[in-house]
Amino acid sequence: MLFTMETHLNGDTCGPTVDVHAAETFIQSAMEIILDEAVKRGTNVREKVKSVSGTPPEQLKELLDLELKDEGESESKILQRCRDAIRYSVKSRKKYSTVSKFCGQERTVFKGVGVSDTDYDKHLFSVIPVAHPRFFNQLYAGLEPYSMVASFITEALKPSVYTYEVAPVFTLMENAVLRKMIEVVGWKEGGDGIFNAGGSMSNMYAVNLARYRHCPDIKEAGLSAAPRLVILTSQECHYSISKAAALLGIGTKNVYVVPSDKRGKMIPSALEEQIKTAKNEGAVPFMYVNATAGTTVLGAFDPIEEIADICEKYNLWLHACWGGAALMSQKHKHLLKGIHRVDSVAWNPHKMLMVCLQCSAFLVRDKTSLLQRCHSARASYLFQQDKFYDVSYDTGDKSVQCSRKPDAFKLWLMWKALGTRELEQRVDRALAMARYVAEEIKKREGFRLLMEPEYANVCFWYIPPSLRKLPDGPELWKKLHTVAPMVKERMMKKGSMMVSYQTHRDKPNFFRMVVISPQISTADLDFALDEIHNLGRDL
Amino acid sequence: MLFTMETHLNGDTCGPTVDVHAAETFIQSAMEIILDEAVKRGTNVREKVKSVSGTPPEQLKELLDLELKDEGESESKILQRCRDAIRYSVKSRKKYSTVSKFCGQERTVFKGVGVSDTDYDKHLFSVIPVAHPRFFNQLYAGLEPYSMVASFITEALKPSVYTYEVAPVFTLMENAVLRKMIEVVGWKEGGDGIFNAGGSMSNMYAVNLARYRHCPDIKEAGLSAAPRLVILTSQECHYSISKAAALLGIGTKNVYVVPSDKRGKMIPSALEEQIKTAKNEGAVPFMYVNATAGTTVLGAFDPIEEIADICEKYNLWLHACWGGAALMSQKHKHLLKGIHRVDSVAWNPHKMLMVCLQCSAFLVRDKTSLLQRCHSARASYLFQQDKFYDVSYDTGDKSVQCSRKPDAFKLWLMWKALGTRELEQRVDRALAMARYVAEEIKKREGFRLLMEPEYANVCFWYIPPSLRKLPDGPELWKKLHTVAPMVKERMMKKGSMMVSYQTHRDKPNFFRMVVISPQISTADLDFALDEIHNLGRDL
Repeated sequence: MLFTMETHLNGDTCGPTVDVHAAETFIQSAMEIILDEAVKRGTNVREKVKSVSGTPPEQLKELLDLELKDEGESESKILQRCRDAIRYSVKSRKKYSTVSKFCGQERTVFKGVGVSDTDYDKHLFSVIPVAHPRFFNQLYAGLEPYSMVASFITEALKPSVYTYEVAPVFTLMENAVLRKMIEVVGWKEGGDGIFNAGGSMSNMYAVNLARYRHCPDIKEAGLSAAPRLVILTSQECHYSISKAAALLGIGTKNVYVVPSDKRGKMIPSALEEQIKTAKNEGAVPFMYVNATAGTTVLGAFDPIEEIADICEKYNLWLHACWGGAALMSQKHKHLLKGIHRVDSVAWNPHKMLMVCLQCSAFLVRDKTSLLQRCHSARASYLFQQDKFYDVSYDTGDKSVQCSRKPDAFKLWLMWKALGTRELEQRVDRALAMARYVAEEIKKREGFRLLMEPEYANVCFWYIPPSLRKLPDGPELWKKLHTVAPMVKERMMKKGSMMVSYQTHRDKPNFFRMVVISPQISTADLDFALDEIHNLGRDL
Repeated sequence: MLFTMETHLNGDTCGPTVDVHAAETFIQSAMEIILDEAVKRGTNVREKVKSVSGTPPEQLKELLDLELKDEGESESKILQRCRDAIRYSVKSRKKYSTVSKFCGQERTVFKGVGVSDTDYDKHLFSVIPVAHPRFFNQLYAGLEPYSMVASFITEALKPSVYTYEVAPVFTLMENAVLRKMIEVVGWKEGGDGIFNAGGSMSNMYAVNLARYRHCPDIKEAGLSAAPRLVILTSQECHYSISKAAALLGIGTKNVYVVPSDKRGKMIPSALEEQIKTAKNEGAVPFMYVNATAGTTVLGAFDPIEEIADICEKYNLWLHACWGGAALMSQKHKHLLKGIHRVDSVAWNPHKMLMVCLQCSAFLVRDKTSLLQRCHSARASYLFQQDKFYDVSYDTGDKSVQCSRKPDAFKLWLMWKALGTRELEQRVDRALAMARYVAEEIKKREGFRLLMEPEYANVCFWYIPPSLRKLPDGPELWKKLHTVAPMVKERMMKKGSMMVSYQTHRDKPNFFRMVVISPQISTADLDFALDEIHNLGRDL
């Protein structure tokens, strides 16, 4: 029970209960911990190398002392819990020191400094931080200081973006960012949009809007009297399409999968065939969701122009998602040729643009307030029409959420700080790094690319020496299938880095390295390949 | 283009591009601004009184210089933008000084101190901050330092809670908090749950789970072959139920509204009638969503026991939402009598428990992994079944989101710091304050309660002297209808506080004051009533 000043009123306690001065001291101390532990330790490969390990859940539970009790704890104890939450997520071990190459030059990776790690060293624990240069596990990575500061500001101010009156600054910033993103997509006549809690939600919005455009009556009447609606998507689509189909009452089996070629690109003629199949069955295909711009697994780009032609022919809504960042680059935006023709886009700046999680925009080409009409419920207690300002700035009714975080501010502040040109250079740099690691893989014995990477995802096998003599065939594939999980387990227990693995169609388990942080150096990539070899050479 | 160290590789630039030392300095400076501007100025009514004003969007746009350009800006400029974002959201005017009563004692409200406000004073601007003691506009308020610090930590670490391997600490904390909340709800045999991006999403989850329990085939087959499903809800329900029905393909007109009595409580016999009506029409009522525990407008509690009896009789899923905080209080939990009988609960600790936005739990009584089965898509690239740890800790497939923020950590840290007992006292204190303002309203001439408040929402009219002689009837109601919007406009332009207004059924516009921050004092409440009178006396 901290910061509390008890006051009483007719036998009942009354406020204020929070002593703001005491709270300030606490916040200040906590901020120092965050800066020391999360920012400095979490990111700086040049000062020390992280070494973290996988701890079983039961053991970590005990270390964290999770139980919530009747009595509160002291300030110092709570500050220690902050430190613990960070340290058990971001482990630094002192004894590790090495020399590695950094863009051709040798550099010393120093030993850990600062607070003693003794207590933490006793235990095995957990995960390499997302912000660390050796995190290649997911489609997001890196520490981005501007968006981090912006998120601190919004946390401290607690605004929720639904009406202009409660969040005027952030409403306008969202508006400005959306307009800029629409410009980058190339919708010359403008468009509409909203920031959401993640890309999966943006994809759901796309499905809902497509359905609403197809038949606005469904909003009121529901689907029970409607014909069977069919969504078409690529074989390589993200699982959120399936989740959206289930949630929206369309049904997962009404997601018709369009085959893709060996590189993971959807085959346009197959799309037309599937549309015809659906129609012959008496179903109503109403959208192609996912002109996937950088598929989840292989990082492939679908041929948007050809897909757009077919969608126009059959009056299908066309939705594209993910690799929006490529649009920032003059060098790479050809990958998204035709993007201006899609009806909607899910663009997640929390991925390659590195904005703090979450920052996910849903953009729509429509200019007739389809987004508002599709989602509005017109709550009288929020969206009064007799307000004294232009109520078109009350954007909340475009969302299916009620309280909504001002995620756009994170992108806005970062964009202001870096400018469009630097954002472009970051994208180019990350893709150059992906290119670098692909070339390294080709040079190294025992490494084999699944295919030339088109984007930031580099997929490859590591073949241990014991398997290298085996001919291509079922025996090799069966044995190879066990290698990546074993290497991953060792990697997590040692805590040297994070690289994901998986299967794809008939392919045995392979590594999927996602290279999107511009903080990554060639030395980090060399380290990753060396480390896979070190961890797997005896298998 | 800050913090950047250019390096080159075969003509391409390579990383790392972020100079972590420079980034640290920036973050440190920004943190000081946040502490000075958002925390100290934003909350402390005892040092200075906020005075903020409504600025039209076009004017604020210019002040903010929103455009995103090719070139980046200097560090000092970006820090200034951080200051602006806060100040234009949180305005402090120096000249304001007053003496007011604080729990019966006079106190001086000091003039503003610190950084010069000259530049800001030139302009009219915006909104009173959510964290300020004079914000009564929405169902959330106040500054809660522990959850704020927790959110800073998660922003700095950037974890996404979908697999144990990427967020072990936060996965376990979420688990611990959910178990505790389930205990508080009173499900003796346990249950399941997940944190979501807001209560609207939790309500959607409830609809989806109810539908899945009713007919699991809908997940795959969709609704086109299904009978017409009907959701029953109270007349007083939150608009998110309507949004959920639209999004989930059920249709807004298949939300059957059950009348409530004058106090806003749903009438159980009317529920049974509506169920029969739906059945007679050949439709399938499958859930009663919203045993509303504290309705949005009037703050009324539905009679859960009676509703539960009816739901059991007709095999309807029963979902309850919002006023979960009352469960923390021995004194007030009788309001939620029968809550242990509901099938699911949406509980938003970002409301009365004051956790930083968003913090919203969806709890479900089911123990057969209904949540997982309903939402899972089993993405092979995330939820590999051959991992070396217990994959039941990979909770991501319970969600329809992919990346998901560890919002539970905010509640966990706050609960650790305060303990259950202090949380209870805060709830009691806020409700005592709501009681206080209701009594004050009854004492004051020209103020009239809509009804005795049952919870934190106090709904009332202010009748200016010119209308006080009019008899109750259409002429008075018509004139009264214009009073609250006028007072609200003046309040926003002056910037003295934030109180919401609205209509309800045939009632003309009234004020809805939501008293949930334990930081509020009786002096703040007196001020609010005085101010409404001052702003509206000439109408």
